[in-house]
Amino acid sequence: MNILVTGGAGFIGSHLCDLLLLQGHSITVVDNLLLGRKENISHLLNRDDFSFMKEDLLNLPVLKHIFENGRFDMVYHLAANSDIQKGSKDPGVDYDLTFNTTFNVLQCMKEYDVKKLFFASTSAIYGETCDRLTENYGPLRPVSNYGAGKLASEAFISAFSSAYHIQTWIARFPNVVGERFTHGVIYDFIHKLQANPEILTVLGNGEQIKPYLYVKDLVEGIQFICEKACERFNVYNLGSDSRTKVKEIAAMIIEEMGLDARIEYTGGDRGWVGDVPEFKYDLSKINELGWCAKHDSNASVRLAIQKALGK
Amino acid sequence: MNILVTGGAGFIGSHLCDLLLLQGHSITVVDNLLLGRKENISHLLNRDDFSFMKEDLLNLPVLKHIFENGRFDMVYHLAANSDIQKGSKDPGVDYDLTFNTTFNVLQCMKEYDVKKLFFASTSAIYGETCDRLTENYGPLRPVSNYGAGKLASEAFISAFSSAYHIQTWIARFPNVVGERFTHGVIYDFIHKLQANPEILTVLGNGEQIKPYLYVKDLVEGIQFICEKACERFNVYNLGSDSRTKVKEIAAMIIEEMGLDARIEYTGGDRGWVGDVPEFKYDLSKINELGWCAKHDSNASVRLAIQKALGK
Repeated sequence: MNILVTGGAGFIGSHLCDLLLLQGHSITVVDNLLLGRKENISHLLNRDDFSFMKEDLLNLPVLKHIFENGRFDMVYHLAANSDIQKGSKDPGVDYDLTFNTTFNVLQCMKEYDVKKLFFASTSAIYGETCDRLTENYGPLRPVSNYGAGKLASEAFISAFSSAYHIQTWIARFPNVVGERFTHGVIYDFIHKLQANPEILTVLGNGEQIKPYLYVKDLVEGIQFICEKACERFNVYNLGSDSRTKVKEIAAMIIEEMGLDARIEYTGGDRGWVGDVPEFKYDLSKINELGWCAKHDSNASVRLAIQKALGK
Repeated sequence: MNILVTGGAGFIGSHLCDLLLLQGHSITVVDNLLLGRKENISHLLNRDDFSFMKEDLLNLPVLKHIFENGRFDMVYHLAANSDIQKGSKDPGVDYDLTFNTTFNVLQCMKEYDVKKLFFASTSAIYGETCDRLTENYGPLRPVSNYGAGKLASEAFISAFSSAYHIQTWIARFPNVVGERFTHGVIYDFIHKLQANPEILTVLGNGEQIKPYLYVKDLVEGIQFICEKACERFNVYNLGSDSRTKVKEIAAMIIEEMGLDARIEYTGGDRGWVGDVPEFKYDLSKINELGWCAKHDSNASVRLAIQKALGK
């Protein structure tokens, strides 16, 4: 297929490009390089079946031009803000980067008659609950602007899918870790310890517990869903059944770095405004489709730490 | 309280103003009069406790100025597109009028520290399902851009409520009917029959069945929720348990107009793209709070027809 990957120079997007090219697809990446990095896709730039455009999805005339020339069979829309803390300080960040990018992509898909869409959604749309989350869980009460921007995106995707007959696959990601990440708990802790190997300051009480997924498992899961799920509108939680505590991540990083650092907790049950201290996925739906992650949560975290340290 | 009512010159907004003034509140209405009408509030314009501004919520600098001067205790945000068919033809309509108006109101509430919000939501956020809809129903799969715009609004309201401590009441409206309406099935049928008293053309097969609620019951229900529900984030379905078929509405209108018109159905199970042919509310939550509508669905429809005919 002839595929547009938005945010394709980003952490997850670039791994997805690697896999899609391996499967024989032709790829166009549009990325504004705000969070994405050219070095994530530098190994792809000289391929005939890959092209990169540094453009902003918020520039609708330019995006229309890309769609007009591209004649895409499918769009993988991954471009978004991915820094939840930043979005909580300034709601305009997720409004623009997470939601308006989606709305522009949808408008172009409608206008240029592209009939297949993958959308990268998130556990953050569910909000704060200790319940086991199925895809049909309600109520949906995001506590971060990031979660709101993704749920708002899902809302318009649902309407466009129905009204304009766009086959849609939505995967709701957990915390994703691995090579090329640009932020998140592992990234933060390693950088803090590189700056000061004696003390690691952890936001919250360290008891936050979430499922982590290795990025290569994630993109394999995305492709599994897009190939196997055949409803007009397909929604899947993507993750692992197991979970890892923030304090366990801290300990693993200190161990892998060979340090003897003291951990200092700032206290409170969460790291920042908009942080969801705990969630667990019900993965029956994707398991029944025939997929489960190769690495559990702890193994994903361990692998990501090792990759980040160049091991 | 000192209250801002957005869309306060509209069908529902103007009835809400009547009730809020009766309860002793001071009201500022902001309405761009795109769907609202000045005559809906002409009887209020000379009151000291009422002021009207013809302004557009999409004009953020002007809206900020209104918030800065208004020092509101609470916002009732009713401004939105309410014409579902129009929004299905042009997604920009609900994007702007239904969603972006909400986002601008939220930004101003954050900036000017307004801590109470009522939001007019809709059954359309649930999408197309024959299940009985509780407030916690999932999945939420709107089939119209109107429903998407309202769900996208709820998403950001949820995040703002949580992150910036805004107490929130959301009521999800059914089909609302009564004096001052500007569109909808009763309005359409009466106008069609006034143009041609011989034939009434009905979109779809007439079997579409939904709960209808009389507008004065609705605004009473809104105020009941805002006064009695005391969570930080309160969501209620607002409606009646009973439902009315489109073909029954047609028959009632022909009867009330004293005509002998023939009904012609265009066929198909729905009136237009984005129409939800059937839904039913579970009203346990609002009933347990102590409220139920004075008029059932058929009585609401009958009353609205009579009022529209000046009876």
